[in-house]
Amino acid sequence: MHKLVLIRHGESTWNLENRFTGWTDVALTATGIEQARTAGRLLAAEGYEFDQCHTSVLKRATHTLWHCLDAMERTWLPVAHSWRLNERHYGALQGLNKAETAKEYGDEQVLVWRRSYDVPPPALEPQDPRSERGDIRYAKLEAGQVPLTECLKDTVARVLPYWHEAIAPRLRAGQRVLIAAHGNSMRALVKYLDGISDEDIVGLNIPNGIPLVYELDADLKPLRHYYLGDAQAAARAAASVAAQGKA
Amino acid sequence: MHKLVLIRHGESTWNLENRFTGWTDVALTATGIEQARTAGRLLAAEGYEFDQCHTSVLKRATHTLWHCLDAMERTWLPVAHSWRLNERHYGALQGLNKAETAKEYGDEQVLVWRRSYDVPPPALEPQDPRSERGDIRYAKLEAGQVPLTECLKDTVARVLPYWHEAIAPRLRAGQRVLIAAHGNSMRALVKYLDGISDEDIVGLNIPNGIPLVYELDADLKPLRHYYLGDAQAAARAAASVAAQGKA
Repeated sequence: MHKLVLIRHGESTWNLENRFTGWTDVALTATGIEQARTAGRLLAAEGYEFDQCHTSVLKRATHTLWHCLDAMERTWLPVAHSWRLNERHYGALQGLNKAETAKEYGDEQVLVWRRSYDVPPPALEPQDPRSERGDIRYAKLEAGQVPLTECLKDTVARVLPYWHEAIAPRLRAGQRVLIAAHGNSMRALVKYLDGISDEDIVGLNIPNGIPLVYELDADLKPLRHYYLGDAQAAARAAASVAAQGKA
Repeated sequence: MHKLVLIRHGESTWNLENRFTGWTDVALTATGIEQARTAGRLLAAEGYEFDQCHTSVLKRATHTLWHCLDAMERTWLPVAHSWRLNERHYGALQGLNKAETAKEYGDEQVLVWRRSYDVPPPALEPQDPRSERGDIRYAKLEAGQVPLTECLKDTVARVLPYWHEAIAPRLRAGQRVLIAAHGNSMRALVKYLDGISDEDIVGLNIPNGIPLVYELDADLKPLRHYYLGDAQAAARAAASVAAQGKA
């Protein structure tokens, strides 16, 4: 049996301000740091060990991983970073307050942007200062790989190659893998692993900072999955995520 | 021309308590964290960019690197960890206060242990709770690779394979490399790079948390080296390191 642990980054400053974040590189709040450290203490207390960690190139996920590893006394574990694990790009909504956007466009339109599988939000203009132009993290990517907006379908399409090329082979080789990522890059993985439909995946809310354990068979098919720690707390946290887009 | 930047970890809790640390995995002090962040701000202000970072498996070096990268907004850079970059193992002196040890054994004996090239301090007993037995970081090393004590000559012997196998090839490939390490693993590298004699290397004191830049030619021979930032501050910090072993 293979074990894979996923963790969504802790609360970020823009989670707190209820803004659309996407690829904007915001930091964790003090609460987010504490969530990450709590996750690490929980993993350590349950005896989890890892051989390889993966995260995005965004600091809220990297910091979550660092604090988690620090609380586990495992600061020396190898960490791979990939833009493919980044949050869904939120296009021209990045930086806008979710509730204000809902007031302006209506709950329904915002829900479509947040929760439809294949309708992307309005795209950033390539010249928009919020775009990734000139960001050396993405300088080696091919033209067209850096999005100006994404629907969840787009996110799934760029996350899965990383699963197949960088994560699945390690799991098959017997490595124990920890992934610190984002709400939508985790949705992409969970959709693939559990074979969730396009319709249902958009209703799946993943709480911040709570380790999600997948037990996988030899073919990397899930046997079961569960949140570590207090299940009710995880459910409350997920419900709070779901409510963010309401005006 | 190739550029290599070395940085000794910031002040640790045992630097502050003036204890022999070696492979004991102690944390940074608030001052040490600030030193690391200052180093990162300095590197960013001077326009330094890196392709690959290296550090030890000890948290004071890893945390130094993390804080430095964070201050540079480069949290996504790849980091390799190796036990070969660890501090010199201080044997049975690990945990003892330097000044008290000097009172007990005399300044001269402590200076021999601290600063002779080939006289190791008394070895830890293999069963000593301070030894690395059962530490999963070192579980895959061969018998005899994990020291019970080291003189600087021993440290040089286990650092240099990492230089030749993991660092030099990357520099030759044009990568810009940042290494966050320890007083004696840095002495080992500096001795090799600058061809410093066994006698002279023990008198070289490297300050905490100040970037040391090496400009190397195509054969990785040093053209020049310099500390970044305030040269007088670097000299004062080095003098303070030198004075630690006095009763």
